[in-house]
Amino acid sequence: MRIAAFAVTLAVTLAAVLGLAALAVVAAPGSVRAQPLAVAEVGSFHVGGRAVSLTGLPTRDVVFTAGSAPIKVDPNGDFEVEQMYVQYVKLASPRARYPLLLWHGGGLTGVTWETKPDGQAGWQLYFLRAGHDVYVSDAVERGRASWARYPEITTSEPLFRTKKQAWEDFRIGPVGSYKLNPAERVALPGQLFPIEAFDQFFKQGVPRWATTDVAIQAAYNQLVQKVCPCVIVVHSQGGNFGFNAALTAPDKVKAVIAIEPSGAPKPEAAAGGRLKGVPHLVVWGDFVAQSALWQRFVPASQHYAAALRAEGGVADWWDLPKMGVAGNTHMLMMDKNSDQVAQMIQKWMGERGLMR
Amino acid sequence: MRIAAFAVTLAVTLAAVLGLAALAVVAAPGSVRAQPLAVAEVGSFHVGGRAVSLTGLPTRDVVFTAGSAPIKVDPNGDFEVEQMYVQYVKLASPRARYPLLLWHGGGLTGVTWETKPDGQAGWQLYFLRAGHDVYVSDAVERGRASWARYPEITTSEPLFRTKKQAWEDFRIGPVGSYKLNPAERVALPGQLFPIEAFDQFFKQGVPRWATTDVAIQAAYNQLVQKVCPCVIVVHSQGGNFGFNAALTAPDKVKAVIAIEPSGAPKPEAAAGGRLKGVPHLVVWGDFVAQSALWQRFVPASQHYAAALRAEGGVADWWDLPKMGVAGNTHMLMMDKNSDQVAQMIQKWMGERGLMR
Repeated sequence: MRIAAFAVTLAVTLAAVLGLAALAVVAAPGSVRAQPLAVAEVGSFHVGGRAVSLTGLPTRDVVFTAGSAPIKVDPNGDFEVEQMYVQYVKLASPRARYPLLLWHGGGLTGVTWETKPDGQAGWQLYFLRAGHDVYVSDAVERGRASWARYPEITTSEPLFRTKKQAWEDFRIGPVGSYKLNPAERVALPGQLFPIEAFDQFFKQGVPRWATTDVAIQAAYNQLVQKVCPCVIVVHSQGGNFGFNAALTAPDKVKAVIAIEPSGAPKPEAAAGGRLKGVPHLVVWGDFVAQSALWQRFVPASQHYAAALRAEGGVADWWDLPKMGVAGNTHMLMMDKNSDQVAQMIQKWMGERGLMR
Repeated sequence: MRIAAFAVTLAVTLAAVLGLAALAVVAAPGSVRAQPLAVAEVGSFHVGGRAVSLTGLPTRDVVFTAGSAPIKVDPNGDFEVEQMYVQYVKLASPRARYPLLLWHGGGLTGVTWETKPDGQAGWQLYFLRAGHDVYVSDAVERGRASWARYPEITTSEPLFRTKKQAWEDFRIGPVGSYKLNPAERVALPGQLFPIEAFDQFFKQGVPRWATTDVAIQAAYNQLVQKVCPCVIVVHSQGGNFGFNAALTAPDKVKAVIAIEPSGAPKPEAAAGGRLKGVPHLVVWGDFVAQSALWQRFVPASQHYAAALRAEGGVADWWDLPKMGVAGNTHMLMMDKNSDQVAQMIQKWMGERGLMR
């Protein structure tokens, strides 16, 4: 009896330490989430950027509280700018061959991957449970990457997305359907974003700049040099950065999974078949055909994917509704069926030889 | 032989799953860090804040790229502002009675706790290994909490800390010792900040505002209502927010550990002994007596701690050099002996009945 009990304890314990990840894909998400994850390390770092000194600018008198005496603000000094922020969770025994890098879209941060606005666990945890080391990052000028004084360092001013823009541009509701009062907002029929949590989602938003692409790409390229070989999952504005990161380091980037990329390199960039060994997957949700905005954005990645294939590479194109998966908005990692989409992506990675 | 090998495996494995935290305090950090951590969940959320609408403001023509046509920027719309960001790692079997909330100081974010600029693991991982669920947050207007348009919403403008300010105000080098060239910077003799990584540390900095204290406190108080009972570890500018959070919810905050708090409530706030059941610990590093800046900041928490004691409460006061621990700067969670200080704090929590 005691020996049997010991054996069971040993088996359960070993499973907890070594075998957990193996269970993640076969078991239902609910049951998987109740099981502990064997984590080797959590931590973060900043990468990229440059030192900048401001000199000779006039000091200004600034009144910080109405009625109080002005305080001199001196904008001069030495700073670090254009770095990016990266946070990682490393597993004790990853089943994936390479770490998974999750890159967010415009006006957002790595929070995109960490949580869903209705409180469900994000894709970060999904892919950890599926056996990947996961790196979640904030690109230059947002979130924990920080931002620089403008117009002295960043040459333009920040842009703040409105709720109306997010509601309509992200294909949650049709153009003109946004209202301040949540009860009056009319969503697209069949859409799967958790609209009851739309204002909560909006708290994840951060200002963005229109003039920082070069700095953002430079930091991403440095990240790739630091932590790859890797697989990159990238969303929206990030699509272009992910495609370019692979073009810059085709030896380090083992796959690119672009979720609704808002742009892509010119097809000529694929010339010479240098990305032949780097499978690409492009994923699109629902209601794209009805959206003038997205009809403008889709062709770039379409032409780029075609060029990758013409050069002998793999560039899979998923139009989810055509695959029987309806209702996805632009924020498909937060939609009510988002774990189903994650599972499809996980399966693709397995088929592409990216799991051990 | 095989039975012996099995017994060793069993012991090691059980230790890994169940007994790790128990080893964390006694074993050397290096050996502990090689062992996996049994994690139940990682995730994040935003809490607090309010909806704001801007209306009637004029649109402006903004040129984003030199030479390109101006683009109309419309500042009007509906936004969410003054929320804060919170990230958590929950253990499968926490040994601490309550989650540990790590609150950063001014001009910084939760990154303070996640990493050290020389690449060593931060206190987040230390306290996870010691058996705590850990919540790392970004206060209102910084990091992943985002920030709001000014002066239309936040009434003042952001302040950007310079390297000189950080080098001198954080007691890494004496006043006047900062130079742009790292090789020319002269640190305080015996100080323990990893100065070779000072510019890397600086990448963690974010702008701050001087007019957001009320909003910051409101969000922290909502965080306490959401996730506590808890223990709060707070640094620098955060000190005041931590002390006030305990005053606001003495039933929910089970202890406050203030690392070099730059302020504190007035002693009268402790009247009536309402914090009698909430032990406080205030920790100060080295070189405080030689710093005019910190000589101005220390008395507030000194008087507050004395008032807590006078009302029958616990308010321990650690002057680390007097306890034989020399060399700590203001960023003592990043100093080369930072894990030694973490260990002392962990021991204090045990003695105060905060571990199971």
